[in-house]
Amino acid sequence: MSLAPLLLAAASALQAAPTPPPLPTDPVAGDWRAIPDDELLVLRLAGDRTVVIRLAPALAPLHVANIRKLARAGWWDASSVYRVQENWVAQWGDATEKKPLPPGVAVAVPPEFEIAAFAPAVRMARPDTHSAVAGITADGWPVASDGQGTAWLTQCSGMGGVARDADPTRGTGAELFTPIGQSARRLDRNYAVVGRVIQGMKWLSALPRSDAPLGVYATAGERTPILSAALASDLPPAQRPRFQSRAADNPRFEAAVRRRESPPAPTVGGGGADVCEVPLEVRPAP
Amino acid sequence: MSLAPLLLAAASALQAAPTPPPLPTDPVAGDWRAIPDDELLVLRLAGDRTVVIRLAPALAPLHVANIRKLARAGWWDASSVYRVQENWVAQWGDATEKKPLPPGVAVAVPPEFEIAAFAPAVRMARPDTHSAVAGITADGWPVASDGQGTAWLTQCSGMGGVARDADPTRGTGAELFTPIGQSARRLDRNYAVVGRVIQGMKWLSALPRSDAPLGVYATAGERTPILSAALASDLPPAQRPRFQSRAADNPRFEAAVRRRESPPAPTVGGGGADVCEVPLEVRPAP
Repeated sequence: MSLAPLLLAAASALQAAPTPPPLPTDPVAGDWRAIPDDELLVLRLAGDRTVVIRLAPALAPLHVANIRKLARAGWWDASSVYRVQENWVAQWGDATEKKPLPPGVAVAVPPEFEIAAFAPAVRMARPDTHSAVAGITADGWPVASDGQGTAWLTQCSGMGGVARDADPTRGTGAELFTPIGQSARRLDRNYAVVGRVIQGMKWLSALPRSDAPLGVYATAGERTPILSAALASDLPPAQRPRFQSRAADNPRFEAAVRRRESPPAPTVGGGGADVCEVPLEVRPAP
Repeated sequence: MSLAPLLLAAASALQAAPTPPPLPTDPVAGDWRAIPDDELLVLRLAGDRTVVIRLAPALAPLHVANIRKLARAGWWDASSVYRVQENWVAQWGDATEKKPLPPGVAVAVPPEFEIAAFAPAVRMARPDTHSAVAGITADGWPVASDGQGTAWLTQCSGMGGVARDADPTRGTGAELFTPIGQSARRLDRNYAVVGRVIQGMKWLSALPRSDAPLGVYATAGERTPILSAALASDLPPAQRPRFQSRAADNPRFEAAVRRRESPPAPTVGGGGADVCEVPLEVRPAP
């Protein structure tokens, strides 16, 4: 109510100085970079629903090595999405948690809760409630840091996390989850992040919720069958999805983040946005 | 890096003092307070799916007055959920946006983007990216403030927002939405909040997503019918849902928030949590 007159007064005082034009926020052609096809895990769910996960071998190399072996062994073929908890996670793999792992898959993987370095191309203007500083890496991964030398991938909606038992070294990558509601930032540094759903998140987020404890479906009939899971690089070329990711190490991406943080009037923006609110920017290769 | 030695020094100095036992976080019987039945809007979706929305007459009185009149006129009977956008919102009302409003419903409601006072019973330990300070009111509403006298309800997942056109005075309460993914905090102070889904959010969040622009279903067949919407107080007593909300103005609730912000080891917590991560605490009246 009282703000409008103030804004008018400020506008009046600034009339002498021309406002600089806003920086361009749209990507140019060179901002789109191909995602290698051995970094794409393609899940085919029953009902002609395809989910594509971009893997992060540079940030969680040990788990991604396991995941590639699991995919190549066909380990997830005839598995299922067996847990869907409202405003929390969807989780898939072997519902019995007893299926033997293929030869060569490590059963005790170091947690990889943290990443080697905090190297965002764009830093968010404000700290959030879970980190001192956060940002987006050149190739599009949301990362955060405590400002004291420790950095990690953030558990935004759609990120791919490694389910595990209480022992943090017992996550193999065979059981995976993704946050389907509010970002699950309290899992940051407690559960490894190995990738991000870049296509078909709508299939996982719209699955029926289970009222059973922890959202694990009470009956096998409720599960959503996973018909197959393969690396794109192992699919016949005609079936291989090809994606590009928008690079963040350029002024256009930074301008887009700043615009999200401080939108133009009359939209009220507080000068900040959470790193999980930066839109995922991927597209099928043209 | 530089903090760790300081912490060790502090820990060392405190070794003589035993650690106090953690404060109790569970509610006692008196912490549960009845929600008045004229503050409950009961939506019956096709397929035996019930959604209950708690209204906030103290915080958005003009919109809630409209909503009560709309419910009593049966305006939403035979309406639909006509927009479901992935990681954004589900929206319902009259898909044609042309159905006349009942007599007595105001067509130009002051925006009510802000609330009269910032009066949380528990304040979050840290500011978040969208506000200087946030917290939970005594009766359970998440609120935030810019620290300069302006306060508002926060657009967490499940909150009930007023859809509108570009003109902020053209929201009536007839078209409502709820964030179904990441909290939609960039709508804070831009869209009025009139309530919160307290039961059946799983029905709205699991609806099929639309790929059409803004997530508005391209065909009528995709919509989810709303059979009826009524205030609980207008339903026959035997059909009337009764809910209680956990009061926040007590040390048990505050301890629960602090525990969420700083969970016990070995879980890593950063000392902060977003106000939208405080769990909704309602239950059917015993």
